Amino acid sequence: MSVLFTPEQNSALILGGARSGKSTYAEKMVLACGNAPHYVATSQIFDDEMKQRVHQHQKRRGTQWSVTEEPLNLCEAIEAVPTSSSAILVDCLTLWLSNLMHHDRNVDVETSQLLELIPRLGQPIVFVSNEVGMGIVPENALARAFRDHQGRLNQSLAAIVDRVDFIAAGLPLNLKPQRTIQ
Amino acid sequence: MSVLFTPEQNSALILGGARSGKSTYAEKMVLACGNAPHYVATSQIFDDEMKQRVHQHQKRRGTQWSVTEEPLNLCEAIEAVPTSSSAILVDCLTLWLSNLMHHDRNVDVETSQLLELIPRLGQPIVFVSNEVGMGIVPENALARAFRDHQGRLNQSLAAIVDRVDFIAAGLPLNLKPQRTIQ
Amino acid sequence: MSVLFTPEQNSALILGGARSGKSTYAEKMVLACGNAPHYVATSQIFDDEMKQRVHQHQKRRGTQWSVTEEPLNLCEAIEAVPTSSSAILVDCLTLWLSNLMHHDRNVDVETSQLLELIPRLGQPIVFVSNEVGMGIVPENALARAFRDHQGRLNQSLAAIVDRVDFIAAGLPLNLKPQRTIQ
Repeated sequence: MSVLFTPEQNSALILGGARSGKSTYAEKMVLACGNAPHYVATSQIFDDEMKQRVHQHQKRRGTQWSVTEEPLNLCEAIEAVPTSSSAILVDCLTLWLSNLMHHDRNVDVETSQLLELIPRLGQPIVFVSNEVGMGIVPENALARAFRDHQGRLNQSLAAIVDRVDFIAAGLPLNLKPQRTIQ
Repeated sequence: MSVLFTPEQNSALILGGARSGKSTYAEKMVLACGNAPHYVATSQIFDDEMKQRVHQHQKRRGTQWSVTEEPLNLCEAIEAVPTSSSAILVDCLTLWLSNLMHHDRNVDVETSQLLELIPRLGQPIVFVSNEVGMGIVPENALARAFRDHQGRLNQSLAAIVDRVDFIAAGLPLNLKPQRTIQ
Repeated sequence: MSVLFTPEQNSALILGGARSGKSTYAEKMVLACGNAPHYVATSQIFDDEMKQRVHQHQKRRGTQWSVTEEPLNLCEAIEAVPTSSSAILVDCLTLWLSNLMHHDRNVDVETSQLLELIPRLGQPIVFVSNEVGMGIVPENALARAFRDHQGRLNQSLAAIVDRVDFIAAGLPLNLKPQRTIQ
């Protein structure tokens, strides 16, 4: 399966578990759109573990990318990306959601704004997001709320983007557009 | 991929994580079978969180459905569904399993009864169940036992129903019947 | 989908959640290669729960298999398998990884050795491994480290083996080789 968008596709959601290779896959998809890729990072660096993770991502991406770091105001960050960029990578919606909840933002309102923005964009955009609902029900109520929000956000995005791939062990399963099978 | 059963299909298992859209998908499948859908709810309302979740499901389904609420005696509830109903939705096996374990029922015996019942039903039947085994091993022994039971139940059901779909972000991956690939 | 290797395939990774049926599927794949299957078990028996699990696997497999038990030195165990065996099953990489971490072994070094060994083997080899990254982020730092290692190990293996199948409810989704779709 090619990681290239087809000519009619302009937006994609790349889903997967932790360390599934979803960022690497999404980066390839954005790079295939041209040589001025733009990266919107939603991570907020709280500790050394996170710092190391962000550093690894940066090292892998190389210097070709222009970068915006924005943990909360994602729509504003996307709208401010130069129109000269070839495509946008948002990595990732899971950290953005976590930041929204941490700062008591209204997740439904923020999600609606994002859903309205996507069809208006000039460049292709690729979102990375985590699948977090395939384990045992968490004992912690906040973790359950997070899982619910993440599931709803993934469903909303998946419904409007042109393409959805699910990544496991670095390999993609295409979820949308649907293959015609019996 | 169509959510319609083909003429030879009479039973389906809809698998997915939490908030994956599996109930919505299963409801569409049952509604596509005719205008007298029957809903077998296995939820037991312990707290406000559960009450709200059940209420959201009811609101989405609308008034077209006839409903049985039965947390434990699932086979009896299914056998008592009027033969005039067009299809049956069982939502979900994960709560049923949780209720069985909570009441010290023999899960293997109950599962066997369900497996024997399915081929004898007059109407199409769709089961909703959770995938719970793709996270880290739970520290809690009861959670591990639940995970094992859930995995076995999903495997048993999947082996005998005519169709299995795995839902992620509201989108289906068809697991059964298998497409012929190399 | 056939569980048979095609003539050009010599190595496979079978991924899945807990109790997904991945071992049963992998056993069928190895048995289809001939009547001298060899089993490399990586489990270390600490408690009764594990003892029971291992016993169930042994009972299912029957007496046709020759067996090596090796919790840590996996490459040595694989290299010592008699050349007369028809195919090798390694079950599973998740327990091997857990044992490596428990004994403070260098996971990256051990993984590299394994990756170098695979193309040199005379017989087909099938690895079983768990998907553990699709739940909520674990609160425990060791669990997070384990999840990261497991994800990386699965990605590395998936990149070099000839075939990858993801198992849910006993049913396979083929991840590699990729079907040609739009």
